Amino acid sequence: LEAEDQSAILSIAGAMHYADLSQVYQELESERHEVFLKSIGPEIAADMIVQLPDSMIEEALDHFGPGQLKILFRELSDDDRVDILQAVGDEPRLRFLGLLGPEDEELTRSLLRYEHDTAGGRMTTRFGRIFASMTVKQAIDHLRRDQENTETLARLFVVDARGHLIGRVRLRDLAFNTWDTPIRDIMAEVGPEQRVLATADQEEAANLLLRYDLIVLPVVDEFDHLLGMITHDDAMEILQEESTEDIEKQAGIVGEQAEESYLQSTVLTHFKRRFVWLFGLALLAIASGYVMMRFEDTLMQVFLLSLYLPMVVASGGNTGGQASTMVIRAMSLGELGPGSASRVLWKELRLGAMLGLLLGLTIATITVLILPAFRPQLPEGVSYLLFGATVAAALSAQVVTSTCIGALLPIGARAIRLDPAAVAAPAITTLVDVSGMVIYFTVAQALLGL
Amino acid sequence: LEAEDQSAILSIAGAMHYADLSQVYQELESERHEVFLKSIGPEIAADMIVQLPDSMIEEALDHFGPGQLKILFRELSDDDRVDILQAVGDEPRLRFLGLLGPEDEELTRSLLRYEHDTAGGRMTTRFGRIFASMTVKQAIDHLRRDQENTETLARLFVVDARGHLIGRVRLRDLAFNTWDTPIRDIMAEVGPEQRVLATADQEEAANLLLRYDLIVLPVVDEFDHLLGMITHDDAMEILQEESTEDIEKQAGIVGEQAEESYLQSTVLTHFKRRFVWLFGLALLAIASGYVMMRFEDTLMQVFLLSLYLPMVVASGGNTGGQASTMVIRAMSLGELGPGSASRVLWKELRLGAMLGLLLGLTIATITVLILPAFRPQLPEGVSYLLFGATVAAALSAQVVTSTCIGALLPIGARAIRLDPAAVAAPAITTLVDVSGMVIYFTVAQALLGL
Repeated sequence: LEAEDQSAILSIAGAMHYADLSQVYQELESERHEVFLKSIGPEIAADMIVQLPDSMIEEALDHFGPGQLKILFRELSDDDRVDILQAVGDEPRLRFLGLLGPEDEELTRSLLRYEHDTAGGRMTTRFGRIFASMTVKQAIDHLRRDQENTETLARLFVVDARGHLIGRVRLRDLAFNTWDTPIRDIMAEVGPEQRVLATADQEEAANLLLRYDLIVLPVVDEFDHLLGMITHDDAMEILQEESTEDIEKQAGIVGEQAEESYLQSTVLTHFKRRFVWLFGLALLAIASGYVMMRFEDTLMQVFLLSLYLPMVVASGGNTGGQASTMVIRAMSLGELGPGSASRVLWKELRLGAMLGLLLGLTIATITVLILPAFRPQLPEGVSYLLFGATVAAALSAQVVTSTCIGALLPIGARAIRLDPAAVAAPAITTLVDVSGMVIYFTVAQALLGL
Repeated sequence: LEAEDQSAILSIAGAMHYADLSQVYQELESERHEVFLKSIGPEIAADMIVQLPDSMIEEALDHFGPGQLKILFRELSDDDRVDILQAVGDEPRLRFLGLLGPEDEELTRSLLRYEHDTAGGRMTTRFGRIFASMTVKQAIDHLRRDQENTETLARLFVVDARGHLIGRVRLRDLAFNTWDTPIRDIMAEVGPEQRVLATADQEEAANLLLRYDLIVLPVVDEFDHLLGMITHDDAMEILQEESTEDIEKQAGIVGEQAEESYLQSTVLTHFKRRFVWLFGLALLAIASGYVMMRFEDTLMQVFLLSLYLPMVVASGGNTGGQASTMVIRAMSLGELGPGSASRVLWKELRLGAMLGLLLGLTIATITVLILPAFRPQLPEGVSYLLFGATVAAALSAQVVTSTCIGALLPIGARAIRLDPAAVAAPAITTLVDVSGMVIYFTVAQALLGL
């Protein structure tokens, strides 16, 4: 990037989509950021900076002087401006707020009151709002004046004189009706379920958009005043973020999803997100070892038991992980109401019994057929058949209990208001490792008469 | 649901959104389906049936006679009609195709050629298409005639005389320009990356919509003829489906995501999706048991080793699962190109070393401090310090190898054209269980001089 290439950069950047531009920027070495930003100028940089990971935003803005920042902030839609201000430190936030015009500043401050992950924190206030008392012509004139400040005109919301949301019209309804038609006559109702409170979780808003196939979802306060709207592209981003978060939580990775991509996050960032669970689970796993030590005598008498020990224990972890995954996903898709614990338990109990029995029978059959060829040592009075039956019984018991534990833990977590997805699959695996050890050795003691 | 309540059902159903209606229908006992469907009639039933799980669609359609089915199919948009026909058996599909008008039948047959999970299989052909040679007035007249057949007018695509995609306009551009303005003058370009081939995977289409914040994405053939469009609500559904699929695969659950909700799927359906991995992993876990048997002597000499055995082994599974989850998610978000294997390995190697060393040091410290209080038996010449160091060394080695295995397996899977997400976390856990056993006992033999 030579200085003389600045105009070349500008002409290429002007033709690129801001999503692509932001990727190019992230792949540049940081010494080149300044030249790059100065080449494209604040107008183009504005939309690009919104797409950057939070951690890169402040540095990017610092390359511009106050005059250029004014232009940059004016280019941004209000929700993007709020996102950017939420990503920077307290000191620059105040400094940047001072650069906004008085109207923008007031609006931005009022939006900053909502948490980043609520409907209010995500909404835009640049939307087509018309009054029920207007005619089609008045509405079109009103929208035309305002069109540069409007993010989408695909859906227009109708309010009464006091700002309550009372209906919606499509732009086509305006385009295809005569100019003197009153808006009140052509507006459609907005069902009470097709709006969201500004304080509601962003995931709730995204799920409403998905459920009702909406392009935009109106955001209201508790008195039903129309405050803003969530657009379909926000909803898609929210759903992706939440899915990633669920996936990561279930693998025992803590903390906010990194805004940076996997390769761009530092090793230390990854380390912090992974170590907590790893350490906690290691401590928990010592309980398994403790159980094993307590059953030293049993293991010494029939050391052949160790051949099947990892299998019995691990099968519990696997089936428990499957059960918890299905239940957690069903919850986050809103399929399981609060009262469904008993139905889930009944389903997983039957499922666990089927899985455990078939698994036990198969493994027992293989054992009885193949094991004699290796002539292992078995104590007096223990036949291959009895040994196989012991393994099968322990395996079935372990699979049934683990399936139920895996299904119930996320439900229990939600009952005490924890995030179900935080019951990570590795936690379930480690937990049922302990119960598996106990089950295996207890069953062996009982059936083999040790 | 008494027969006399039919009109009550109809009036309630008419006021409900089809997404809610479909949920009510799914919660009804099946004997009541017929009364319910006949009460609401084919017009309302059409949109509701689209929302049903595939397995319930054929049964629902069978409650209507040919005349009503004709009405029902006429109500549907072409992509919904195709979805429904793809959900039913071959025989009813032919029968239903015969009920369509000749134009609809030809269109539906041509759409049925695309696989369900491609852009072509998902697209609608009911979109606003105008010609570059039109004026604003001609375009508005053209769209008004066609408006009932159009799914969204939020974005309109401009084609040349031979049907090539050459631009787009927004409805507001028509509404706010003078009537004699030529479309060619106000249309915007559609970048080559902002369109998708009909044969492309649906996930690719959804990711483009997400990346470029689009409401609709044009679908073209290889000659750039405009065939249809994917709308934002399709994209949101696709992304949710794909996330669920990834989550389920990583827990070792096979097969297509059930269209039914968790509670509505039969126990047998769940059973089939879970048993395969459970059985395969159980067999693999016997390898761990085999390793343990081979090291009988080592374990007998220092049975205290069993206290830490599950911890060392499980830590590998946990860190391997974390690494694979992060890599798989990064891949499905498109963050990792094909050449990034070495960068991923380098990152995970450093990360594994940090995690392993800190974990090993902490556990060793705890061991050396606490263990003496329990006065366990250690062989001649083995101090608590040496024993702690042995556990730490084995733990570190296990964490480093498992982290690398977890990161590399999904990359390897993709290299041989398998789905990375199919390398389930439990598979990695079970695999590194085996390596963990070997590492633990080998390190113990070497350091403790057994």
